[in-house]
Amino acid sequence: MATQEFTAAEERAMQLALGEARRGMRGANPLVGAAVLDADGAVLASGYHRGAGFPHAEIEALANLPEGLDRTTLADCTMVVTLEPCNHQGRTGPCAVAVAEAGIGRLVHASDDQTSAAGGADYLRSRGVDVRSGLCRDAALDLNQRWFKAKSARRPFTTMHIAQTLDGLIAAADGSSQWITSEAARQDSHGIRARVDAIIAGTGTVLADNPRLTARTGNGEPAASQPLRVVMGTRDVPADAAVRGSDGKFLQLHTHDPAEVLDLLAGRGVAHAMIEGGATVAAAFLKVDLVDELVLYLAPLLLGAGTRSTAPLGIGTLADAAHWRWDSSGGGHTTNLGADLRLHLEPAPAGSTPAVRKGL
Amino acid sequence: MATQEFTAAEERAMQLALGEARRGMRGANPLVGAAVLDADGAVLASGYHRGAGFPHAEIEALANLPEGLDRTTLADCTMVVTLEPCNHQGRTGPCAVAVAEAGIGRLVHASDDQTSAAGGADYLRSRGVDVRSGLCRDAALDLNQRWFKAKSARRPFTTMHIAQTLDGLIAAADGSSQWITSEAARQDSHGIRARVDAIIAGTGTVLADNPRLTARTGNGEPAASQPLRVVMGTRDVPADAAVRGSDGKFLQLHTHDPAEVLDLLAGRGVAHAMIEGGATVAAAFLKVDLVDELVLYLAPLLLGAGTRSTAPLGIGTLADAAHWRWDSSGGGHTTNLGADLRLHLEPAPAGSTPAVRKGL
Repeated sequence: MATQEFTAAEERAMQLALGEARRGMRGANPLVGAAVLDADGAVLASGYHRGAGFPHAEIEALANLPEGLDRTTLADCTMVVTLEPCNHQGRTGPCAVAVAEAGIGRLVHASDDQTSAAGGADYLRSRGVDVRSGLCRDAALDLNQRWFKAKSARRPFTTMHIAQTLDGLIAAADGSSQWITSEAARQDSHGIRARVDAIIAGTGTVLADNPRLTARTGNGEPAASQPLRVVMGTRDVPADAAVRGSDGKFLQLHTHDPAEVLDLLAGRGVAHAMIEGGATVAAAFLKVDLVDELVLYLAPLLLGAGTRSTAPLGIGTLADAAHWRWDSSGGGHTTNLGADLRLHLEPAPAGSTPAVRKGL
Repeated sequence: MATQEFTAAEERAMQLALGEARRGMRGANPLVGAAVLDADGAVLASGYHRGAGFPHAEIEALANLPEGLDRTTLADCTMVVTLEPCNHQGRTGPCAVAVAEAGIGRLVHASDDQTSAAGGADYLRSRGVDVRSGLCRDAALDLNQRWFKAKSARRPFTTMHIAQTLDGLIAAADGSSQWITSEAARQDSHGIRARVDAIIAGTGTVLADNPRLTARTGNGEPAASQPLRVVMGTRDVPADAAVRGSDGKFLQLHTHDPAEVLDLLAGRGVAHAMIEGGATVAAAFLKVDLVDELVLYLAPLLLGAGTRSTAPLGIGTLADAAHWRWDSSGGGHTTNLGADLRLHLEPAPAGSTPAVRKGL
C-alpha cells in the first residue's frame, strides 16, 4: 500500500496512538491506542485501552473529544487507531459501530484484526467511512507481538512473575523466602493476580510453601476479582492445602506439560494466566517459549547461595541464551517499588537480537 | 548544636548542596556539594566535586558565581558545604584558603573532616570567617558512609562490577561469557577502569579468560589513565599472560585475603580499587564487607544454568542476607546502557534494614 495514502499529520498521530497504546497493561487484550484529527490534521483527542475490563481505545478517544465540539464536524475528522476496530459485542458494543455512529469520516488503522473480532473495517466501509490500513503496521505488530502469537496459538497470554535477589535467588540455602521483596512489590504482584483469569503453580511450591494463591488487597482482604488457582503436577495436593480454598476456584492438572496446561485453560475461557512458580514450573514454561511477559522484582539483597529463580533451561552456551527486551508498557520497564526494583520484559522476537549486541 | 544557629535559607541551601554532591562519582574522594548564598539567603551559585582529579566543590561553587558580581559583597555571603573544607595542598591548593581569599564572610558545613586534610574550619576562623558546623550532619555522614568507613580503616574505596544475566549468571554452562553485556555496558566499565588506581582479579579469571585488565576507549585504544593490574591468588600467572603487559603496572599478590590485598595496595598509594572478579574473588570481598559500591550490569538474557556471579557467601538464611541500597549518585541508580540496565548500589549501613522490609 503506497505511503502517500497517508498524510504527515496521520503519521504523527499514529505515533502518538502507539505511545498511548503503551500506557495500557498487557493481558487478555492487545495494547491499543487511538487519536482523532480534525480536518486540518490537529489532534482533537486520544485514548488507550487500559486492559481487560476497560473501554477500548476508540471509545476512550471519542470520550475524550472536547466538550462542546460540533459533532457534525466529525464527518471531516479522521480517527487513527493502532489496530482495526473490533466488530464483536463486548461490554460497550462493537467499536466499529461506535465509530460509525459518532459520524467519523475517515479511519486509518495500523494492523488488521485477525481474530474472531475481525470485520470492523468492512463494517465501517459499509457505513460509508473511508477506511485505510497499514500506516505504521510493523510497529503496531511489534507492539503486540506476543499477544498475536498467543492468540494465533489459541492459548492464554501468560505473565510470569519472579521475586529474586540481585544474584537471582528466590530462597536462601535453608529454604527461607518470606519475604525477599518488600510489601510494595508483593502488593504489586497481588495486583497482577487480581487482573488474570488463572494463576499457575507447581505441586512443589504448594507442598513447600502452602500458598493461598489468592489476590489480596493492601490490608490483606481478598480482592474483588479472584483468579482460578491451578496447580500443575502429578503429586497429590493435600486435602487441607490452602490453595484448595472453599470457593470452587481450584483446579489440579495432572501434567508437567505447559502447552497442555494452557490448552486446558483456554478451553475453560482463561485468556490471561499468571505463572507463579516455582523454579521448575518457571523453567518448563520458559523452555518452550510460553512466557509472554516477565515481571521481575529485584530486591537489593545478596544471598550467595540458595534456590535459583529458574531450573536449568537446557541452554549450554551463551549464543543460545534466551533474549528478552525491556517492555515500557504499563508504566515503564523499570519502577521503584518500596526498596525493590520492578523490571518489566517481554521475549525479544525470534531473530531480533538487539543491534547493540549483534554488532560486536 | 542548636538548630537556631542556622537560617531556613541555609537549611534549604544545604539540601541543595547534598543534591549537588550526589551528582559526583564515588571513588578516592568523598561526594561533596556546596552553595553560596547572598545576604538575603538567595542562592548565587552551587557546585559539586565530580570525582578524583576534578576541582573540589567549594572551588566549583566559587567558579560558578555570577560574572560581574561585586566581589566585595562576598563578605556578606555564606557558603554552605556538605563537608568541612580541606586544609591540604591538592592540585588547586587548600579549599579553606580559596574560601578565605574569596572573602566569604560565613561558612556552614555539615560534617567534619576527620582525615589528614582536616583543619579547614580552624584555618577559616583564623582568617576571621564565621564558621558553623552540624547542619544536616546525619545526611552528610550517610551520603559518604562507605567512604568514611574505608578512610577510617585506611584502605582504598572499592567498586565491584558484575555483568550478569537476569538470572544472575556471568557465564553459560560451557563457560562462554563474551559477551553477556552490550558494547555500551562494557564501555561504561572501561570508564570505571580508567578512574580507579588498581583493578583486582583472581588467578582463576586470569587463567580462564586471559584478560588484559587495561582501560580502553570506545575504539579499543588504551585510555590515558591505566590502573595497576593486581592478580590475587597463589597459582602461577603464566609468563605470557596478557595481564602482565609491558608497562610495569602488574602486580601479583600471593594471598586470598581481601583485607591483606587492600592493605598492601593502600601502602602503594591506591585510593580507589575496582574488583573485577571472578566469582571467588567477588565472594571473598563481599563476605568480609569490603565492597563499598556495586555496579551491576544486567543483560536481558536468561541462561538457566552456568556460573553464578558470586561464590557462596556463607549466608544460610534470608534473615542474614546482605542488604544493599540503591545509590543514585553519579547519574542515577538505574541507567539504560544499550540493551542493558546499569544498576548502582551501596551496602546499606549496619542495622538500617529498609523500613519497608522491616515493617512486615
